[in-house]
Amino acid sequence: MFSAKIKSEVLREITDVISTLVDEAKFNISPDSLSVRAVDPAHVAMVDMSVDKAAFEEYKADEGELGIDLDKIKEVLRLARSGDVISLDHDEDRNRLVVHVGNITRQMSLVDTAGMSDPKVPNLDLPAKIVLRTNEMRQGIKASESVSDHIALVAHSDGFEMISEGDADTVRLDLPKDLLDELQCKEKVRSLFPLDYFSNMVKAISGTSTLTIHLGNDYPVRMEFTFAGENGRATYLLAPRIESE
Amino acid sequence: MFSAKIKSEVLREITDVISTLVDEAKFNISPDSLSVRAVDPAHVAMVDMSVDKAAFEEYKADEGELGIDLDKIKEVLRLARSGDVISLDHDEDRNRLVVHVGNITRQMSLVDTAGMSDPKVPNLDLPAKIVLRTNEMRQGIKASESVSDHIALVAHSDGFEMISEGDADTVRLDLPKDLLDELQCKEKVRSLFPLDYFSNMVKAISGTSTLTIHLGNDYPVRMEFTFAGENGRATYLLAPRIESE
Amino acid sequence: MFSAKIKSEVLREITDVISTLVDEAKFNISPDSLSVRAVDPAHVAMVDMSVDKAAFEEYKADEGELGIDLDKIKEVLRLARSGDVISLDHDEDRNRLVVHVGNITRQMSLVDTAGMSDPKVPNLDLPAKIVLRTNEMRQGIKASESVSDHIALVAHSDGFEMISEGDADTVRLDLPKDLLDELQCKEKVRSLFPLDYFSNMVKAISGTSTLTIHLGNDYPVRMEFTFAGENGRATYLLAPRIESE
Repeated sequence: MFSAKIKSEVLREITDVISTLVDEAKFNISPDSLSVRAVDPAHVAMVDMSVDKAAFEEYKADEGELGIDLDKIKEVLRLARSGDVISLDHDEDRNRLVVHVGNITRQMSLVDTAGMSDPKVPNLDLPAKIVLRTNEMRQGIKASESVSDHIALVAHSDGFEMISEGDADTVRLDLPKDLLDELQCKEKVRSLFPLDYFSNMVKAISGTSTLTIHLGNDYPVRMEFTFAGENGRATYLLAPRIESE
Repeated sequence: MFSAKIKSEVLREITDVISTLVDEAKFNISPDSLSVRAVDPAHVAMVDMSVDKAAFEEYKADEGELGIDLDKIKEVLRLARSGDVISLDHDEDRNRLVVHVGNITRQMSLVDTAGMSDPKVPNLDLPAKIVLRTNEMRQGIKASESVSDHIALVAHSDGFEMISEGDADTVRLDLPKDLLDELQCKEKVRSLFPLDYFSNMVKAISGTSTLTIHLGNDYPVRMEFTFAGENGRATYLLAPRIESE
Repeated sequence: MFSAKIKSEVLREITDVISTLVDEAKFNISPDSLSVRAVDPAHVAMVDMSVDKAAFEEYKADEGELGIDLDKIKEVLRLARSGDVISLDHDEDRNRLVVHVGNITRQMSLVDTAGMSDPKVPNLDLPAKIVLRTNEMRQGIKASESVSDHIALVAHSDGFEMISEGDADTVRLDLPKDLLDELQCKEKVRSLFPLDYFSNMVKAISGTSTLTIHLGNDYPVRMEFTFAGENGRATYLLAPRIESE
């Protein structure tokens, strides 16, 4: 059993966080929250997300799972005006999701979740922690896209850097310690990442003002953030590219 | 003889109503009004439109006809600022339409109307009548475009429905009686239509807040509306698709 | 030595004026100003531009030259918010331009200026002079693009005209004397120009309200304007097309 009402802007935030990595996802439903864990098709990135009951206008659910095509949710969101409440009800007899927005009803077929296992979140020991404003990063990413398709994240005791090195040009975003909300870093660490994945992840969390980054040396990056008015929490993991020098 | 001045926004409404079905049209001119009757190239839809003299800032005309390329009128409209008055004069000697907007003059060649006969408007006995707000329909059409290229219009004694059925999903817009401006329907009727035609027609009448629909069973739909501040009246007819079940 | 700070909107004006003709340009640097003289690859048009020190927030320079890829400057401009100051410093050791905007630094490789000579500005005796508002011309150009890929500029003692003649239609912008800021023209002159070049030039000078045109008979046109708050001056020259009649 699953029956919920949610503001369109909150549903959009949830959808964006997941759809940057996958088109379809298995939503794990429980009486108090809803969660998704998914790996992108190339096995380069992972999302681990959960949203509390409190993010919804109404929420009633038993334990269960729903396989959802996120493009269809996006189509429904395009019909919603700001402030609209969208209702989502699982029709168990016909295995459909019944979605209402305004005077419109969409009977949405569900995706088979048989082949969708929950990926295991790896346990990573990442020595550096940086808390920063996402809009600072967005400018850095935009600048990097002109020169390379990789981006290096660097932390040292004085600040955080994003560096992109092309054949001819180099772009660097420098965030000294006083521009960061928090910095824990004893020794300099640096890892290189595919810019497209990193960029899409940061773009997906538009509703988030602050991002926590955990970083190591040639290690995956872990990005943690809240959304849906603190009622949602998510972690992105992104595998590094090994630097050849 | 034809010499007229018209506000750019009114000329745009007239042009949109016709150009959704045809690129070129024969305008029938008379001293008191201007009218167009046209069928689309695939013979699926018809428009029957007339605009009174009162829709114009100035209007002087004898009986006659003008073959006009509507794309050229749209090009002129792109030059007009809001509130601009466009003047249209028939230069009979050179068989051109002379169009003025601001300091710009376009000498526009006319289209030969020899092969353009006025189509006969069929006499249809359509049992149901629905009067509704066009912006409600627009949301329903947008929702339908995600799932199918057909749309069923349904009227029954309790309200009006637009239904689009895809392979996996179904979209339904429900407008119960109290959301309609008027409903006359004794027995349930339903006809299926090509969504692209229906969508283009509804999009073309952006200046219109209310639409009257006459509907039957597997019969053409007739849509009537006014525009140009009640000085224009138009009827769209659209042929049904036969449902195979 | 070259070290300067400039408001992003002023740098954008400078870049637009040049980049309509060339992708890369040699900037001639001197202690009091910066100038560029360039011919487009097809040798149809020329720009001769100089900007005073006063257009900059800070400016220190010796005599020298910098070969700059204008697309890279545009990429930097896309990162700037309105009012941002961009700093430009020549790193002579590595022959790079170091560009700062916000917390972002771009190390920009320079273009080799060895093959870039300063074109000689031809001395033209053009009998007619017209001073007009650029936004009037923009409407005329937009109208012309529908009918032809050439545009005739005509001056006579009563005013200025832009005429575009297509196979079927003709577009004319008429600016009688009283709509011009200045008109010096004893005998009628007319020259025909490629519309795409002319259009791009006029679009490039969006920050300019007034344009001075010098015109002859089947002769190049010279267009003069100021920008960057009167601290920049530029001249465009455009070669005519010979009319076949």
